[in-house]
This record gives sequence, C-alpha cells and structure tokens, in this order.
Amino acid sequence: MVLEDHAVAVDGDSIVEVLPVAEAAAKYAPRERVPLAEHVLIPGLVNAHTHNPMTLMRGLADDLPLMTWLQQHIWPVEGKVIGVDFVRAGVELAIAEMLRGGTTCCSELYFFPDVQAAAYKGHGFRAVAGLPIVEFPTAWAGSRDEYFERALAVHDAWRGDALISTAFAPHAPYTVADASFERIRTLSDQLDIPVHLHLMETAQEVEDSKREHGLRPLQRLQKLGLVNDRLIAVHMTQVSDAEVTVCADAGVSVVHCPESNLKLASGFCPAEKLRRAGVNVALGTDGCASNNDLDMFGELRTAALLAKGVANDAAAFDAAFVLRAATLNGARAIGCGDKIGSIETGKRADLTAVHMDEVETQPLYNVVSQLVYAVSRRQVSDVWINGQRKLDAGVLVDFDLAGVLDKARRWGERIASIR
Amino acid sequence: MVLEDHAVAVDGDSIVEVLPVAEAAAKYAPRERVPLAEHVLIPGLVNAHTHNPMTLMRGLADDLPLMTWLQQHIWPVEGKVIGVDFVRAGVELAIAEMLRGGTTCCSELYFFPDVQAAAYKGHGFRAVAGLPIVEFPTAWAGSRDEYFERALAVHDAWRGDALISTAFAPHAPYTVADASFERIRTLSDQLDIPVHLHLMETAQEVEDSKREHGLRPLQRLQKLGLVNDRLIAVHMTQVSDAEVTVCADAGVSVVHCPESNLKLASGFCPAEKLRRAGVNVALGTDGCASNNDLDMFGELRTAALLAKGVANDAAAFDAAFVLRAATLNGARAIGCGDKIGSIETGKRADLTAVHMDEVETQPLYNVVSQLVYAVSRRQVSDVWINGQRKLDAGVLVDFDLAGVLDKARRWGERIASIR
Repeated sequence: MVLEDHAVAVDGDSIVEVLPVAEAAAKYAPRERVPLAEHVLIPGLVNAHTHNPMTLMRGLADDLPLMTWLQQHIWPVEGKVIGVDFVRAGVELAIAEMLRGGTTCCSELYFFPDVQAAAYKGHGFRAVAGLPIVEFPTAWAGSRDEYFERALAVHDAWRGDALISTAFAPHAPYTVADASFERIRTLSDQLDIPVHLHLMETAQEVEDSKREHGLRPLQRLQKLGLVNDRLIAVHMTQVSDAEVTVCADAGVSVVHCPESNLKLASGFCPAEKLRRAGVNVALGTDGCASNNDLDMFGELRTAALLAKGVANDAAAFDAAFVLRAATLNGARAIGCGDKIGSIETGKRADLTAVHMDEVETQPLYNVVSQLVYAVSRRQVSDVWINGQRKLDAGVLVDFDLAGVLDKARRWGERIASIR
Repeated sequence: MVLEDHAVAVDGDSIVEVLPVAEAAAKYAPRERVPLAEHVLIPGLVNAHTHNPMTLMRGLADDLPLMTWLQQHIWPVEGKVIGVDFVRAGVELAIAEMLRGGTTCCSELYFFPDVQAAAYKGHGFRAVAGLPIVEFPTAWAGSRDEYFERALAVHDAWRGDALISTAFAPHAPYTVADASFERIRTLSDQLDIPVHLHLMETAQEVEDSKREHGLRPLQRLQKLGLVNDRLIAVHMTQVSDAEVTVCADAGVSVVHCPESNLKLASGFCPAEKLRRAGVNVALGTDGCASNNDLDMFGELRTAALLAKGVANDAAAFDAAFVLRAATLNGARAIGCGDKIGSIETGKRADLTAVHMDEVETQPLYNVVSQLVYAVSRRQVSDVWINGQRKLDAGVLVDFDLAGVLDKARRWGERIASIR
C-alpha cells in the first residue's frame, strides 16, 4: 500500500502513528522533524542471508564454479586469515555498505558470531547472529561439543537484546551430521530460535545426499524433524514441485539469492512457484565473495527479472511482491515479523528514505515499480534503525568511514599477498 | 588488458598515446591535466540497442507480457504523444542518464531519427540514428515510399558527421514486408550502413513466421540476403544451435538485452553459445519502458550473471568478456570499431572514469571483476566524448539538468493524464 503525503511519527525506538502530514503537524510537536518531500519512505530492507565477514573477499575469485571457487580460493584464504580482527573488519565494512544501500537488518551465517554481534550492536545495526555448526574443527570451535557450547554461550549473551537475535546456523546438510541436526532440533525448540542453513543449492548436493543417505536433503531434514516454521532454507535451486508443497505446508521460509545462484551457476530457484504455493519467500545477497555486493536494491531487481524468465511469465514476482519479500517476508523468516518489516504503529522504526527526484527515476508513474526496476542504491538518502538515524542525507552518522575503509584496504593487501 | 599508473594523452578529438604517467609527465605539456588517482579509466560504454524517446515511459506499465504491454499500454499512449517534442524530451532525459552512467554512444531504433540526431549532436553525444521502416503509417511517415524517402534524407543530412551515423532500422520481421527488406538490402549495400532490427525476440514470433512464411525469421532474412556482417540482430532468444553457426559464419552482430528479455519473459538468449561460436556479441539496455533504466553497468552485471545460469557454467561470460561486449563489440556492431570501443592511439577519446575507492568496491583485488560485479553507475565520475568533457566529477557539463528534469516531469503528468 502506497500512502502519499503521509508522515511517520516515531517515539523512542518505535513507530507511534502513520498519518497524513497535515494531521501530524496539528497533532504532534516532535523534537525533530525530517521533511522528505521528494522521497519514498520504505521499511528498512532485510538481507536474509549473508556472510558479511567475507566482504573482505569481495572479487577475490570470480567466474569460477562453486566447488573450485570454495576449495581452491575461498577456503584456503579463509583458513589463513579468519579470526576476531578479520570478522570485525569485514562486518564493519559491510555495515557501511548496507546502510548506504538502505539495508537495516541482516541474517548472518559465519564463524565468530560473538564478534559479529558486538560489531552490529556497536553500530546500532539490527542483525541475526547465526550460531555456526559444522563437523570439522575451525578457528571458532574444535569439536561438535564445543560448537554447541559456544553457540549456547552466544545465545545467552544476547538473549532479549533490542537489536541482536540468534539462530542456529548449521552450514549445510553436506557438512553437518544427523547427530548435530538432532541436537539443533531439540535446542531450537527449547530456545524458540530459527534454523538457518544452505539447502539444495546445487544438483550435486542432491545427488551426493541420495548416494550417502538414500534421501534428498529436504527429506533427510524432514526425517530429522527440522522441516517446520523455524526453518530458513537458503538457495533451494533444486526444490521439486512436491517439495514446494512440503515447504508451504510446513511453514518453511525460503531465502532466494538470485545473484549468487547465477554467479556460481548453481541452478534456477523456482521462486515464483514457491510464492504461488504460499511459501514465505525472502531475499538475500549471500556473501560478497559470490555476488559481489550487498546491494539489496540490485537483488530486488534481479529477483523480479529472473523470476519472470524462469517462470516464463512476465507477471511473475511483481514489483510489490518483491518489495515485500525484501522487507516483511525477510522479517518473518528470521522470526521478527511482529517487530520490523513494515511501517506500522507499534513496530520498531527501521526506515529507509529514497530520493526519487533524480534523472534515473523520472518520470515517476508508479513508485513501487520504480523502486524495484529503476532505483539505484545510491539514491538512498536517510536510514533509521530502532528509531536512531544511521544515514543522514547520504552520510553515515557516527561512523569512522575513513578508518573502516583503511582497514579494508589493508586486509585486501594482506589477503592478496598470501594467496 | 589492465594498465596501472598509465596516462591517456588526448589531442582534439583523439587519443594520441597511452603511456606510463611518469613518461607522460616528461613528454607532454598539456593544456589540461586530469588526475584520476583513485579511478579506473575505461572506454565509454556503448549501448547497442535502445529506444530513448521511450525514457519518458519509464515504469508506465510493468509486470506484463510483451504483447499486452505493447498493445494495451505502450502503443496506445505512444500514438497520442509521439512527435518532435516527445522525441526530443525523451532523448535529452536519456542523454543525462547515459552520461551519468558512463555511456558515451547509443544505437537507436525509434521514429523521428532527424530529431534524435539533432538532440544527440546538440549535446555532443555519439549516436546511431536508426532509420525506421514499418508497414503501417505513423506520425513519422505514411507509406513505404515515405519511410524510405525520409530515411535517405536523414542519412544524407548526417553523412560524414563526427558523432552521428545512421543504420536502417526495420522494426522486426513481423512488421516489415519482404519488399521493404529487399529495398533495405540494396540500400544498405550501396550506403554501407548497418541494418538494426529486433529478431527472434519471442517463441511466438518464430511460430508466426513459420506459419506465414514457411520459414523461421532468420531463414527468411537469409533468403532476402540480409544475413551478413551488416546485420545487427537484437534479442535472439530463440536462436537455434544451427543458427548460431549461421550467424558466426556470416559475421552477424547480436545485441544481447538480458534485462528486457527477462522483464518481458521473452526467453533466454544463449549468449555464451553465441560468444563461443565467435559471434560478435554486444549489449543493450533496450528502451526504458522495458528495463526500466539505461544503466549499462547494471546490464553488464545482469549479462555476466545470467549467461552463467543459462549456460550452467560459472565461467561463462567472464568479466573481461562482458566489458568488451559493452565497449569494443558494441562499436564493431554499429560499424565504428575503428573509431571507438577501446583506449588506443588514433581512436576517438570516448572515455569513462570510475571512482573505485568507495565502500562498495573495496577491497579491490581485480579491477575488471569489480567493474562488472560491484560497481554502481553512480561511481562514474568523469566522461569524455570525442575529446570533450561531458561529466566532470559527477556533474553534467553544459547541460540544463533542471530544465530537462522539469520537461520530463511535465511529460510524465501529461502521459499519466491521457492513459
């Protein structure tokens, strides 16, 4: 729904009313009034799947298949640099990029969720710290027990926080054993937190699962009791028609990452089929190393365009739906649908203003179409998270941009030197 | 080839030398020196297929199939507004958008090429004025003879111009009769100008052609003698493997418009197959009404990503190839490969500088990757065409931006009111 000449009244962290500008002027005497005459105000964008420490590996290795890319480029470098400093520097660079692009919330799947959570909190950015689980030792944890201990410690540390929530983040069915999935199932029920994982990203994954487990990956998760409304299934390029129905019936959320799927030639997610079946479809950029940006406006456009080609239907993934996918559906996927994702009384004030009176978005017939098909992220002018201004006329607020850029450059030099 | 710490020496309209900065400083005493320490300098981008007067219809009707979109929305509006003022205002808005996005040359297919040519020339922008041919009367011409008369008059008026060239622009096989194609064939040979048309955009077009002519559209053009190195075939989503070989052997150029093809669900052009077969593949945005922007950086990214998905090969359409498609291949398609499309001694100075030291493009491991996968068009800082500066640190030079925007807004209001 598009409202013209309306105002959003904010008190503290929350929206208290959405009303016509004239009424607002009569009713409220605010401490601050922000006129946005040439703008559209939308809910802050929710990037429902990312690996933001990897922003430091943006463009490190491109035009390569998934496994070559991972095994010969990403993992070897990661093994040498991963740690507290790397994670913090990557997240800070990502926060700058996300804020400048109108994103106010992201859902992470990476190591050192404690460091991530602290970085997000420090910058007043809303995030889901994924609690990683894999079967091999990493700099984050050395054994299955340690992964779970550290996961629970991070969950406890941030329980009830206004900005940071948590989710289990088992990497993927092919890197996590049944025993771990069983523990995750029990704990996610007890703690009431989502389970966020890569699922059926490639055809190879499905074939391997059938060979190893006699089941497709989604079937295996069903057997383990994980296919429910807490599941956040990312990618799903290989989902069959029958599985689309399974996901819809179970209340699974699917995070569609069209640019990453294309870039790694992982396959085409039948995103329009999922939408039509009633699945909650959200959008994510995936990590910067396979995208190579955190541009949600770009992802909106790619999602809207690609779904039409894949469904052979120019009416698929219409602009209004895609905008909802990147806001309210993302919020619902991460279990925050009651708090964010729309501009409504009582919700947190996570807001993004986009300047529309520019060459690239004129004439202006339909605001929603323009947001999806024509707006560049550089038209984002102002951003608020939890009622706090984070971007002011294109400038980051209380943010040491030069310092963050300098750190990113130095990490880039170090990574280039160790390849 | 990426050269670091190099300078481009320009005299008048042309590049006189590309050499290391230190050598340039010793050898030349230029009237003006433009330091671009944090930038990449690339050949100006060539948008090889567009309908820029339609920029005034940006976002007028979205999420609709091609024929509904054309017949129920675009054509009825167009019929009421088309004319000199509409074409001029649309082209001027487009020039502003193209310059701000690093595009220095475009190839048009629309009515009133005389008005277009004058607008491009007036702004010092390089363009191919397509000479439209269709079988029905329009505001531009009333009969077949008149279309040809006007085409030849425009060609004569601009012959030998430094910025404006011409091409025949028969709309498509389904709107142009054999008799017209035969005249085009003869005239394009005599005048040595390209033939630019929509070809095999949809499956329906192929079916209709088979029913009406007993031939696929490309076969029909072959019979008519038009399949040669002057042919600029746009879209080609339905090209068969055998036809890929035909195009390669004949020296046909294909203009791939991935965003338009997706948006209208026209089908997937097998762009990587065309490339591998040796076909000269260029890139175009198509008109703003089916895109909805003239963002060539966006088109580069979409082309690189989509080709990987369609070819099921993450190495398809690598970044270096895509950049060449949007520069040198575009120049070759329109018959200007000797003049523009690369930064070489003797070529015209059509140059685009991109500021790379920004959050969104750091760290920087590979300049070409970054240009294709991460750069936003708003990072374009400076543009030259034919040696003349057209964009200076993001600001249009000698351009009444407010006036052009105002005209665009007023056209938008008028068009909205007559729908």
